[in-house]
Amino acid sequence: MKTPVIMDMDPGHDDVIALFLAAGHPDMDIRAVTTVSGNADIGKTTRNALVAADTAGLDKVPVAEGAGRPLVRMPEHAPSIHGESGLDGPALPVPAHMVEERHAVDVMEEVLLHSEEDITVIATGPLTNVALLCRKNPKAARRIRRLSIMGGGTFGNWTPAAEFNIYADAEAAEIVFASGIPITMCGLDVTHQALASESVVERIKEIPTMAAQFTYELLDHFQRAYEERFHLALPPVHDPCAVAVCLAPSLFTFESADVKVETAGKHTYGETVIDTTAGGPVQIAVDIDNDKFWGLIVQSLKNLP
Amino acid sequence: MKTPVIMDMDPGHDDVIALFLAAGHPDMDIRAVTTVSGNADIGKTTRNALVAADTAGLDKVPVAEGAGRPLVRMPEHAPSIHGESGLDGPALPVPAHMVEERHAVDVMEEVLLHSEEDITVIATGPLTNVALLCRKNPKAARRIRRLSIMGGGTFGNWTPAAEFNIYADAEAAEIVFASGIPITMCGLDVTHQALASESVVERIKEIPTMAAQFTYELLDHFQRAYEERFHLALPPVHDPCAVAVCLAPSLFTFESADVKVETAGKHTYGETVIDTTAGGPVQIAVDIDNDKFWGLIVQSLKNLP
Amino acid sequence: MKTPVIMDMDPGHDDVIALFLAAGHPDMDIRAVTTVSGNADIGKTTRNALVAADTAGLDKVPVAEGAGRPLVRMPEHAPSIHGESGLDGPALPVPAHMVEERHAVDVMEEVLLHSEEDITVIATGPLTNVALLCRKNPKAARRIRRLSIMGGGTFGNWTPAAEFNIYADAEAAEIVFASGIPITMCGLDVTHQALASESVVERIKEIPTMAAQFTYELLDHFQRAYEERFHLALPPVHDPCAVAVCLAPSLFTFESADVKVETAGKHTYGETVIDTTAGGPVQIAVDIDNDKFWGLIVQSLKNLP
Amino acid sequence: MKTPVIMDMDPGHDDVIALFLAAGHPDMDIRAVTTVSGNADIGKTTRNALVAADTAGLDKVPVAEGAGRPLVRMPEHAPSIHGESGLDGPALPVPAHMVEERHAVDVMEEVLLHSEEDITVIATGPLTNVALLCRKNPKAARRIRRLSIMGGGTFGNWTPAAEFNIYADAEAAEIVFASGIPITMCGLDVTHQALASESVVERIKEIPTMAAQFTYELLDHFQRAYEERFHLALPPVHDPCAVAVCLAPSLFTFESADVKVETAGKHTYGETVIDTTAGGPVQIAVDIDNDKFWGLIVQSLKNLP
Repeated sequence: MKTPVIMDMDPGHDDVIALFLAAGHPDMDIRAVTTVSGNADIGKTTRNALVAADTAGLDKVPVAEGAGRPLVRMPEHAPSIHGESGLDGPALPVPAHMVEERHAVDVMEEVLLHSEEDITVIATGPLTNVALLCRKNPKAARRIRRLSIMGGGTFGNWTPAAEFNIYADAEAAEIVFASGIPITMCGLDVTHQALASESVVERIKEIPTMAAQFTYELLDHFQRAYEERFHLALPPVHDPCAVAVCLAPSLFTFESADVKVETAGKHTYGETVIDTTAGGPVQIAVDIDNDKFWGLIVQSLKNLP
Repeated sequence: MKTPVIMDMDPGHDDVIALFLAAGHPDMDIRAVTTVSGNADIGKTTRNALVAADTAGLDKVPVAEGAGRPLVRMPEHAPSIHGESGLDGPALPVPAHMVEERHAVDVMEEVLLHSEEDITVIATGPLTNVALLCRKNPKAARRIRRLSIMGGGTFGNWTPAAEFNIYADAEAAEIVFASGIPITMCGLDVTHQALASESVVERIKEIPTMAAQFTYELLDHFQRAYEERFHLALPPVHDPCAVAVCLAPSLFTFESADVKVETAGKHTYGETVIDTTAGGPVQIAVDIDNDKFWGLIVQSLKNLP
Repeated sequence: MKTPVIMDMDPGHDDVIALFLAAGHPDMDIRAVTTVSGNADIGKTTRNALVAADTAGLDKVPVAEGAGRPLVRMPEHAPSIHGESGLDGPALPVPAHMVEERHAVDVMEEVLLHSEEDITVIATGPLTNVALLCRKNPKAARRIRRLSIMGGGTFGNWTPAAEFNIYADAEAAEIVFASGIPITMCGLDVTHQALASESVVERIKEIPTMAAQFTYELLDHFQRAYEERFHLALPPVHDPCAVAVCLAPSLFTFESADVKVETAGKHTYGETVIDTTAGGPVQIAVDIDNDKFWGLIVQSLKNLP
Repeated sequence: MKTPVIMDMDPGHDDVIALFLAAGHPDMDIRAVTTVSGNADIGKTTRNALVAADTAGLDKVPVAEGAGRPLVRMPEHAPSIHGESGLDGPALPVPAHMVEERHAVDVMEEVLLHSEEDITVIATGPLTNVALLCRKNPKAARRIRRLSIMGGGTFGNWTPAAEFNIYADAEAAEIVFASGIPITMCGLDVTHQALASESVVERIKEIPTMAAQFTYELLDHFQRAYEERFHLALPPVHDPCAVAVCLAPSLFTFESADVKVETAGKHTYGETVIDTTAGGPVQIAVDIDNDKFWGLIVQSLKNLP
């Protein structure tokens, strides 16, 4: 049976690859794509989601725009990584797919409350939409079977202590991690193992689908951005981990932990404080089989238009 | 022309009196009553709002339940003032009025977006619903002509620094005060002048309407609660100030100020930090003509069933 | 019997007047003057203290330099009030009085431990020295019979929530208010009643002593600074209140309170959170007989050289 | 030439071994031992330091008592690791060595200002004394050639985010790390490699000196405490790393970093936020040659009485 999912994202290069991985895999059924302010402003992340949906052939899947800014703090974006468009690299045509009139949170509510199965939510941006859902409709939030998050870790990439997605809306993350929703977390500890090697990029370049070409152009930009901004030779491709962990948990090693989100620190705002001493409700992916991970992505890219 | 208003409240004794003041006044047109967790839990504040709507004859006005807990922090209620029911004193019958199926924020959105006039929102509880509206639908929030808040002040009643409504959800208050919505604020500086004297209470007791009798019983409980909890002989009746300030601004003196809400302090969480040195966008009521204020309430109570 | 005192100060116009009030009064015996960074940097406040000691004829009183910066936070000074010298207005000659080789805290320790009577400490600057004493020599700190502080209040002058002396080293103030030392506090609530009227200033101008002339020139600058910076026609003369409250407590009305110092707030750093609901160990002066207060100052100025 | 050092400590099992390592090594010249509240209260850590000085034959070295509590926060001790005495395991006789009358900070000042060479300070407890020195006598603090700290790390042992020494007085640590003093830091990343294996413990048991027998009994207790409290089979012996790093830096690998200390976080109080992206002034030891490290300790124990 297919896993029904909502993809909540702020595309963003790796968000798009995450969407392709989900869209191309026979076991996943995308019920909605929702967008959030994050890597770029909400107008751009929504446009990018529509372009990605076009490229992946997701004509029937609703794409709904969500929160245009974090819950409490001021918005912050990541143009040094994703460029001004939020998706620099490939040409970005005017999307054919139309955005929903309804708000992302309303669409989430409807999918969650009107589905017969419980739904998996894969969140690869700041957690603003999920937090709003928790507060506005806790009954719908309780229908989330599992929330797979890309975010956090024992070290940071946006500050020395904080990863971008959590840092960009730490109050939302605090709400979500305290919500009781079953959470799987792919933080930097695992996503920094999910590197796009040169041979992987070449392999993708050879795949004769639109989605693969788009992905190749994304990775090409991503590699250069990570080299310039972080002096990393190979870019970690974070967001698809949060999809892969649902499709193929056996590719990952997990630790159970209690996770708190710091919202008050002077130097630690947005840090995920991870306590593994007594287990805990969050499943944290700590190791990944990177070869098989890219194998999954390659297969999805072959299955797409 | 009547002022169209949404009453967002956590009844609460003084919330009910605020509702009666609005409902009985010929210049005010209540378009919706929305409820929030605060003085009591959301189930009780909604039940109390329905009972109050029954008593005031608001048969056609939608009553919608809102946020069941603050945005980020844990819920805290005020049974020492409002009793376990949130409305101790009068008998509380099973309400005839039915609660809306839709969430308070959805009802707010609809009223705001589908009205021809801009709407006044009177918020006499924690600001969770208004904050959710700001984040979920900023376009609807911009249709608020004025937000009249009961909350805050230069001193506290729940902690030495903080007033209950702001303290109960300071993150929501931070969002709302930073939202750009035009705000009038009735804080403790003015509401502690709005005392229910014995003669006022007697006057209300004599009014032969259901609403007046209900109000009399509320004030009777309220007086005793304030005496026990705060050693105040006469109870300040906070929430109707936020209605009166819309109906009869000439009864009040105002200062323009910039207001920040403290969310990080160890001893000042929920404090409204008021800066009047250079004016500012918030109209703070600092003085009230208490006689005329009670005159307004008495007149409304006479006009109700 | 004379009250033995240590004057801990950051002169500063009103600090100097406080020193003159103490030096000219027959009931007060100044055992040491210690300086701290505050209104100006430590080099300037020490120089100013030496000049003031010269003017007051305190040839035998040791003047010792103390903390050159706040305990934890970065230094901040008040040139908008006190000018670049920390004492703009009168001519500032090279002082004849020599500064002690020992640190202010060492001198405090010696005075406290080697006096037969318990000592009153009058602190009219940031509380860094007193906090260092508390931590370095709690035994000596326990010999302080009373600590009379100028600082804090229910409103601020340096930020909307904080008074300068507390704001300038809130961590030190937190230590001192939690130390168990008996504290009398003259905050802005009372010092903003201690206004230098035109007639008072004229009266001082007529006194034919060096100290009075110096004071006149200080007040002349102070008045203009308060008018420019705070738009106050008459300047509040804060620091002498902390001396007068020791000399003539009957000129003041007091409230007992618990006082906490906020060190974590975003908008309330340095606020004194005052809780009078259940009394408390701090005696807060809330009203002053301003005429008699200036009478004390005038008499001291007449007694000085 | 011998390295002149001040040992600032809160013994504590590993503090005593650190003292033995320094005392028994021909290249180190201990000028003073100063104590601080930490692993146990100040009375106990001073008594333990005197016992250790007796055992090491440090008859001529002054032992001075320092801060009895942290700068700002409340004291917290570690009896779960060090027992009620702070040094459970060996018998603790009444020490022959007498404590100095002067305060630790005064002794530090004198040693620093009256030595011809610059001094190394090895701090293996909370940094309260060093912070007081920085604020009370910055000129003396500038005479510290290098400050070798045991504390901090990229993970915690007292909370999920914080190591005990830093957590026990994070404000002091903030002051010290911002002081400009050249710092070498042995955090948990390296000290958790400095494990006392069974063969090392046996080797020490065989050494026929008093210091070795004392050490054996300390390690025996320490091993059991770590097993119970942290479920670690072998105990990390933290504090001697901060001595070894001065004696034999070639046993260590270092990273240059900027280090901030978090004092405001809800979950991260006392965390050392380490930023290695652009180097920085702190030399952080990240790897140790554990065999050679224990070789140094064994040799010192042989050299002692």
